[in-house]
Amino acid sequence: MMRELFVASVLVAGTMEAQGASLTARVNEYRAARQPEVVRELTGLLAIPNVATDSADIERNAAHLVAMLAKRDIAARVLRHPGSQPAVYGELRVPGATRTVMLYAHFDGQPVNAADWKYAPFAPTMLTAALDAGGVPGIVTANADVDEWRIYARSASDDKGPIIAMLTALDALHALGERPSVNLKFFFEGGEEAGSAGLGELMSAHAELLRADLWLLCDGPVHATRRPQIVFGVRGVTGLRMTTFGPSRALHSGHYGNWAPNPAAELAELLAGMRDSEGTIRIGGFYDDVRVLTVAERAAIAALPPADSALKAAYELGRTEGRGAVGERIMLPALNIRGMSSGSVENAANAVPVSASASIDFRLVPDQTPDGVRARVERHLRGLGYHIVSAPPTREERLSHARLVQLDWSENGYAGYRVDAGSAFAKALGRITATALSTPVLVPMLGGSLPISIMVGAVDAPMVTLPIVNHDNNQHASNENLRLRNLWDGIALFANVLVNLEREWTRVVP
Amino acid sequence: MMRELFVASVLVAGTMEAQGASLTARVNEYRAARQPEVVRELTGLLAIPNVATDSADIERNAAHLVAMLAKRDIAARVLRHPGSQPAVYGELRVPGATRTVMLYAHFDGQPVNAADWKYAPFAPTMLTAALDAGGVPGIVTANADVDEWRIYARSASDDKGPIIAMLTALDALHALGERPSVNLKFFFEGGEEAGSAGLGELMSAHAELLRADLWLLCDGPVHATRRPQIVFGVRGVTGLRMTTFGPSRALHSGHYGNWAPNPAAELAELLAGMRDSEGTIRIGGFYDDVRVLTVAERAAIAALPPADSALKAAYELGRTEGRGAVGERIMLPALNIRGMSSGSVENAANAVPVSASASIDFRLVPDQTPDGVRARVERHLRGLGYHIVSAPPTREERLSHARLVQLDWSENGYAGYRVDAGSAFAKALGRITATALSTPVLVPMLGGSLPISIMVGAVDAPMVTLPIVNHDNNQHASNENLRLRNLWDGIALFANVLVNLEREWTRVVP
Repeated sequence: MMRELFVASVLVAGTMEAQGASLTARVNEYRAARQPEVVRELTGLLAIPNVATDSADIERNAAHLVAMLAKRDIAARVLRHPGSQPAVYGELRVPGATRTVMLYAHFDGQPVNAADWKYAPFAPTMLTAALDAGGVPGIVTANADVDEWRIYARSASDDKGPIIAMLTALDALHALGERPSVNLKFFFEGGEEAGSAGLGELMSAHAELLRADLWLLCDGPVHATRRPQIVFGVRGVTGLRMTTFGPSRALHSGHYGNWAPNPAAELAELLAGMRDSEGTIRIGGFYDDVRVLTVAERAAIAALPPADSALKAAYELGRTEGRGAVGERIMLPALNIRGMSSGSVENAANAVPVSASASIDFRLVPDQTPDGVRARVERHLRGLGYHIVSAPPTREERLSHARLVQLDWSENGYAGYRVDAGSAFAKALGRITATALSTPVLVPMLGGSLPISIMVGAVDAPMVTLPIVNHDNNQHASNENLRLRNLWDGIALFANVLVNLEREWTRVVP
Repeated sequence: MMRELFVASVLVAGTMEAQGASLTARVNEYRAARQPEVVRELTGLLAIPNVATDSADIERNAAHLVAMLAKRDIAARVLRHPGSQPAVYGELRVPGATRTVMLYAHFDGQPVNAADWKYAPFAPTMLTAALDAGGVPGIVTANADVDEWRIYARSASDDKGPIIAMLTALDALHALGERPSVNLKFFFEGGEEAGSAGLGELMSAHAELLRADLWLLCDGPVHATRRPQIVFGVRGVTGLRMTTFGPSRALHSGHYGNWAPNPAAELAELLAGMRDSEGTIRIGGFYDDVRVLTVAERAAIAALPPADSALKAAYELGRTEGRGAVGERIMLPALNIRGMSSGSVENAANAVPVSASASIDFRLVPDQTPDGVRARVERHLRGLGYHIVSAPPTREERLSHARLVQLDWSENGYAGYRVDAGSAFAKALGRITATALSTPVLVPMLGGSLPISIMVGAVDAPMVTLPIVNHDNNQHASNENLRLRNLWDGIALFANVLVNLEREWTRVVP
């Protein structure tokens, strides 16, 4: 059920630039006067424990969010589906609007180890600066400059802060007599940090309700330079454990070395044949499905703030893999060996080990799929004469195959996803952000993985990530925090997006 | 000081074959009548705990052995050298003998975990059969057939049993009016199971005393077929831990995968480049120092009892490395990867690991040396552009070298050793064993490693291994045992060797 709101507001005429600058100033003025109230609403939400695996707590959060939406006359309800944590859904219809934008965030959080926190993770604590900059508890007052203050609590940044920013932006527009240019929907996920189990199914079950022309995913941090950032995609991921086999029990390496097959040598040979030390994947056809970069994507990559020198110094790297800066490299698929094990290194016995294992995470890019990767890896291994098993081999399998490899594929892999940074809505978001705050960093694709492809598959809408929180928020770790300047900027950014998106989307830029 | 003994005995004329058969029968008859006494002397020696690292116990064993030798009028003393466990030395000069043979055994033993033993390891227990064949405690009587009985105790086979065999053989010869054809020396090592630390130095310090024309090393088992076995060499060994480096802390594999160097991929590439999965070592020049097999060695290898099929079935192997049976393969050097580790396989995080390590044992064959192997490995790695460090690299080293590898070489490596199975004394031992017992298995070189090259370097004498104990003796493990038939045969074999070695050594075989 859609509600109608802002029926009295009138779209202000004038150029977007003037309007945006003006709107940001007006929203900031509105917010500054109500800083205590904004912080209080955030604190109230953060005080509800939200570890993704604690269903009772997740339900309490969901009920609280429904009330927060309802308070703003947004029709809200909890969506449920077996096997998934509940999600909170809301709708706000705008008279005359022809497009619908979905605002996504998640309200669950990572587990906490309270002993590692300076302040209790669910007792939100406002500090006058970052902890490591000597922040001490303080009270936010109206119109005070608290830009560098930070609130410490689990999910302050990941990902409850953005919910407060969205809703405060709506409050500001309402108070300022402005209104969104698009119909709005809200989707707040309750199980993101637990791997979004069942999310695709829940979304598919409610696909009609979740229909939108564009999803804005409000998660993750802005750029490390503190510039705003818009992200147009993410790599996918799939996991593989690969095990080779030697003798059925460890054999004396003197008596049997270079006669009994050494499984670590086999594994090393396989791994070296699958990817070289420059990161190039040597599995036949692996790059066939890699989508070519568009002009806009190449331009965005070229415009990324240089990061390699600082990262190499920070991580003490004498080289990097392949050619190209990190922003270019992550546009390609990766084969990352995350673990390798055979026999013992620390307490090495002079024996031929019984097996050797490697754990691999593949990072996928559009239009690769986990199934496609699996097919190519298995074809590659079969081409080398390996017989593939999916469980520890039996004696008969061992004796009847000269080369044997056990493959355990992860069951929760998913494809990457990317919309062209040159799309009309992508350019619109870029222009709006530039006017509202400053020129954003346009990221064609994050190196990390989120199951956006699963969400896209369920609702068939383009998805763009519009983050607002500080990069130094201790995401997933102890002492997670949100810098208030990021919250303030987020409020201004959402206000600008909501008001100007329709016009900028359809603007013809010469 | 040499003593003279057996001055009254006269070398019996006649062919060696008739003499040998006759001598074996006479020694067996002598031994059968004295079985309880022989066992009692063995039991007394085994009852003295002898874990190689317990110096007080080692001293007690040494003193006991000196007394055992002295009882036979063998001049005996304890040899000492700083950094080495004591050794027991004895001499027995034979009038008219021109050559001197050293009989070597060791009296220390492997550590014990008493909880794993059916009977206490230092409470020697005689069973009427092997434990797993249902043996129960029994008492050995004179002239009883106790061939399949076994005595259970640490060092029953490894390596106190052979000492009893040697000394009982001397007793038998004395009683039978026979005498050795060579001067005898005895060298009983006290720290073999602790790695023979300081053995070379101790032997060098007493090199004049230890001078001999041939050393007979009485250690290790006979062939698994229960045929006698003569071993003409052993592989050497040297150990290497090799570590590659990624970022200074684990990095998110999504954000940095295929940009930050993956140390596991580097290690896999290095290992695969150093040896292939067929066991062939690809390090430049690695085989340059491998001595060519002689005609006698090739003949001995061809005559080895076939073992591959049974071993492949026992260890569930669908293939073996390279071409050739195990007896051929171990004549070559081996690069065995005994351990490999990076990140985590069981609890894999999606991260680029900080480092990757492999532990390698190289098995060396004559005329390779640990130093030569080290030089070739390091040249190989430098040729690949690696900068070699011997300790965890500093930040400066990390930043200034694109490719960095830490090498930790073991300090106790040693070369292999082999005498030609076609040497005059080697052929003599073969003929004597064939006559005394049955046609021996001639093993040009064991796959396993013993520091014989260090001993040879100290005293400059050829060394041949003449084992007597059963192969199924649980060496180094719990429930170590000695099969009495092997002790009986060992007594007969030593008696034949001592009496016939001089003549067979100098015999001209057409």
